[in-house]
Amino acid sequence: MAKSALQIARAAYQPKLPKSLTGNVRICEGKATESVADQEEIKKLFPNTYGLPVVQFEATEDAADYPAINVGVILSGGQAPGGHNVIAGLFDGIKKMNPESRLFGFLLGPGGLVDHNYKELTADIIDEYRNTGGFDMIGSGRTKLEKKEQFDKGLEILKALNIKALVIIGGDDSNTNACVLAEYYKSINAGVQVIGCPKTIDGDLKNDMIETSFGFDTACKVYSEVIGNIQRDCNSARKYWHFIKLMGRSASHIALECALQVQPNICIISEEVEANNRSLDDIVTYIAEVIAKRAEHSDNFGTVLIPEGLIEFIPAMKSLIAELNDLLATNTDFIHIKKSHQREFIISKLSKDNAAIYESLPSLVAKQLTLDRDPHGNVQVSQIETEKLLSDMVGRKLAQWSEEGKYVGKFSALHHFFGYEGRCAAPSNFDTNYCYSLGYVAAALIANGKTGYMASVRNTVAQPEEWIAGGIPTTMMMNIERRNGEMKPVIKKALVDLNGNPFKAFVANRDKWAIGTEFVYPGPIQYFGPSEVCDQPSKTLQLEQGK
Amino acid sequence: MAKSALQIARAAYQPKLPKSLTGNVRICEGKATESVADQEEIKKLFPNTYGLPVVQFEATEDAADYPAINVGVILSGGQAPGGHNVIAGLFDGIKKMNPESRLFGFLLGPGGLVDHNYKELTADIIDEYRNTGGFDMIGSGRTKLEKKEQFDKGLEILKALNIKALVIIGGDDSNTNACVLAEYYKSINAGVQVIGCPKTIDGDLKNDMIETSFGFDTACKVYSEVIGNIQRDCNSARKYWHFIKLMGRSASHIALECALQVQPNICIISEEVEANNRSLDDIVTYIAEVIAKRAEHSDNFGTVLIPEGLIEFIPAMKSLIAELNDLLATNTDFIHIKKSHQREFIISKLSKDNAAIYESLPSLVAKQLTLDRDPHGNVQVSQIETEKLLSDMVGRKLAQWSEEGKYVGKFSALHHFFGYEGRCAAPSNFDTNYCYSLGYVAAALIANGKTGYMASVRNTVAQPEEWIAGGIPTTMMMNIERRNGEMKPVIKKALVDLNGNPFKAFVANRDKWAIGTEFVYPGPIQYFGPSEVCDQPSKTLQLEQGK
Repeated sequence: MAKSALQIARAAYQPKLPKSLTGNVRICEGKATESVADQEEIKKLFPNTYGLPVVQFEATEDAADYPAINVGVILSGGQAPGGHNVIAGLFDGIKKMNPESRLFGFLLGPGGLVDHNYKELTADIIDEYRNTGGFDMIGSGRTKLEKKEQFDKGLEILKALNIKALVIIGGDDSNTNACVLAEYYKSINAGVQVIGCPKTIDGDLKNDMIETSFGFDTACKVYSEVIGNIQRDCNSARKYWHFIKLMGRSASHIALECALQVQPNICIISEEVEANNRSLDDIVTYIAEVIAKRAEHSDNFGTVLIPEGLIEFIPAMKSLIAELNDLLATNTDFIHIKKSHQREFIISKLSKDNAAIYESLPSLVAKQLTLDRDPHGNVQVSQIETEKLLSDMVGRKLAQWSEEGKYVGKFSALHHFFGYEGRCAAPSNFDTNYCYSLGYVAAALIANGKTGYMASVRNTVAQPEEWIAGGIPTTMMMNIERRNGEMKPVIKKALVDLNGNPFKAFVANRDKWAIGTEFVYPGPIQYFGPSEVCDQPSKTLQLEQGK
Repeated sequence: MAKSALQIARAAYQPKLPKSLTGNVRICEGKATESVADQEEIKKLFPNTYGLPVVQFEATEDAADYPAINVGVILSGGQAPGGHNVIAGLFDGIKKMNPESRLFGFLLGPGGLVDHNYKELTADIIDEYRNTGGFDMIGSGRTKLEKKEQFDKGLEILKALNIKALVIIGGDDSNTNACVLAEYYKSINAGVQVIGCPKTIDGDLKNDMIETSFGFDTACKVYSEVIGNIQRDCNSARKYWHFIKLMGRSASHIALECALQVQPNICIISEEVEANNRSLDDIVTYIAEVIAKRAEHSDNFGTVLIPEGLIEFIPAMKSLIAELNDLLATNTDFIHIKKSHQREFIISKLSKDNAAIYESLPSLVAKQLTLDRDPHGNVQVSQIETEKLLSDMVGRKLAQWSEEGKYVGKFSALHHFFGYEGRCAAPSNFDTNYCYSLGYVAAALIANGKTGYMASVRNTVAQPEEWIAGGIPTTMMMNIERRNGEMKPVIKKALVDLNGNPFKAFVANRDKWAIGTEFVYPGPIQYFGPSEVCDQPSKTLQLEQGK
């Protein structure tokens, strides 16, 4: 594997650990816990892993003897910067406790466990991937571990390899499933502990006990770098409006964090759109008004940040999409209708309100809503080019205002979508240290016999030495939600909190940013410079923790 | 202006200069020069600025007295990282020679000279922009300085401000025009010197005397960072082919440099396509063959780099575009034809060969070729989404091969276009130093009474201390070319040299990169780390200079 100069230099970096983990470690157990809601139901579903205490690790002078143990590790779901360092921390952690311990990676995600597809992760492999981005060490995948047959099939290989503990690195769903697996293995006395680690660039896996998911920091910094560069271009050329869509699935955390970093003219927050029951036209009007206002000062340029999941948060669009899904499911011969007649057919079948919305959409987007469908027949919302949809509709509104004499300016739009640029970036110092610490904590939880826990590192706005390491019983974060039509116990997904400090900081500034040109240019992630350049956690985290 | 932590830390960086410029400087003049071609004609067009000697600056112990001088500066054309540092170097250079000298910036490009739109650049303004990206200090623009009236209009304000020298920072066309202006002012004894500086991210302004244009290094490093991140994602998820279009206008230098940095599976070089008279189908077949080959090893993923100007280098497409331009120019009522009949109309009017090509194009691209036209009625080639065109055609070919049993694999494509992400990035150490040196050289050329010269800094693969500073008479780089139907004296545009080392290095490796997965992940530009991470010039430059 040929390596860049930066990779070579970066490989030598020794990630920082909370000081409680650097020497001998003892575990301190708190009081019994409850789930955040639906306590009775969740207790019933998790008789063996419900109510466990929060635990915390502290330094001790007493050395303990730990038996050698074989551990398995799985990367689940979308890539996030720092995954390799979780594995490196886990490896170093189990080796420190007993050099005879061994680590096995299951390949290409949870499917590797079910299909018995694995490799042993030895020191030379681990060293090759320290402090690097990507999940390519063992690959990842989206197979959901949900069924008893999968659990039993997995247990076969775990037993064959004498694996006594499994670490699952994933998002909210994967960690929910990890807990279901922990409960099952405990209930049948399988002798396999299961520990989860909080991963996702989307930032939607966080709560009172998990301050942030890894990868969010790095991904947002990469996006902010390129958005900052675009803003500097925008402010130099002074002739384009850049519509920039950002990954993040349902939640707008990434868009919000980037907005706090780069101070764009406009940033839409899906959660606010939903809370205020905004229509597509409301959003278009808001953007057009800012553009018209800036045009009064001849500032015919600017930036608009758009969260990936926006469409589904517009109540009227949600209703249209739901009706379209039903309509096309019951009209299976739709694909045989002549293309030039499809539009009329759709409009004739939709309810009046939805037909009106459908008619108002640019033809490209209307097509995307009816043609590109996932295997379940649903509209693939993530495929919709919201950035083009909005700029097209804004352009039409401005043209109308121009005719009415309400707008004098030039409107020319460019489009961007950033996502894949950040998911596998080399981790920032924050994620490098945070991930390594999470892996190390997972090793400590295993050594202390825990199962059904997530690795937790808190106080993360302080220097890593001051971070608090411990474990959170996964059931503590659960409630019951409807998913795909069924009521299920799940870790509560964290959308942007409209009462939280990050959103409030944004709201306090956005009108100023809209009209003034107050762009900030964060530049690329730095690894070797002064601490204030290299070690800042995300603005979201700093604001949430009251810094 | 709110500043990021990196901007604040970076502002303190003192750019490095060639050691010949750090103390007292003397000028050494070489022999009279000739233009690269068409000597007689160019001599006739530039009687006052033809045949001047190459000059070089050397350190001397003798201090000289320089009178105070007012200097003007213009940024011309597209943004490129480092423009602000050229201005900072120029400012420091003229101030060092005489602290009473003053610098005036013309605003929003050459138009600022003609329209008398300017501001004085004082130390506080300059300090605000040191080592930053963007052209926002004075803005840029695309007005071409070509006409006597413009020159005379500009002279009014130059005289009013007592400006004796003008520095024009631009690409090949802007530098050609700067020389025409130098010649004119000389011919009328206007008493205004004109000096050019080589700017363009596209890398197509270079020759024996100008090793590289500024901005190329930084822009390519930003693109390589994000392409590297995408490649790591690609290699982790193992399920997408990423089609990545890169800015660069006609020339493929950016695509080639990025390919040398990231080792993608495929990179198309426009100049090679043209030299070998390749058709669109040839390119599609080549890409599909690599994809099919990788699919044999279940590697259903990869990266394809595509230079922005590709379409125009495919001889058959060039011919189609030319015929379409003529066809639509003579059929002005085309826009009134019903949309659903436009396609048939076009096909019926085109020659047989071009009609066949037009029919083979995906409908979206066919539409782009007929609908989106520039103010001169020409197809806007840069608007064509070549990355989607190619992936669409590759997908169709693979589907056909799949039916024929020649291909077994899954093909799923994602698309990216990178350009605006890099043009205003904060300059790399290389561009920071190179630009500052160019500005300083411009000041020295002015102090020595030169006009019709370009600032030149050579030996740029060595450490900055060893760089050779001097000036090149612009006429020396000229030949006569047809531009917009007229024969004109122009600086020869440098496309990718198929006999040059960078292209040869690419060719020697591309088959290996195609089938193996030999991705390199360069990571973000670093400013504070070890020299091998922070100070490497582009691979193109290193290979061209035989390193």
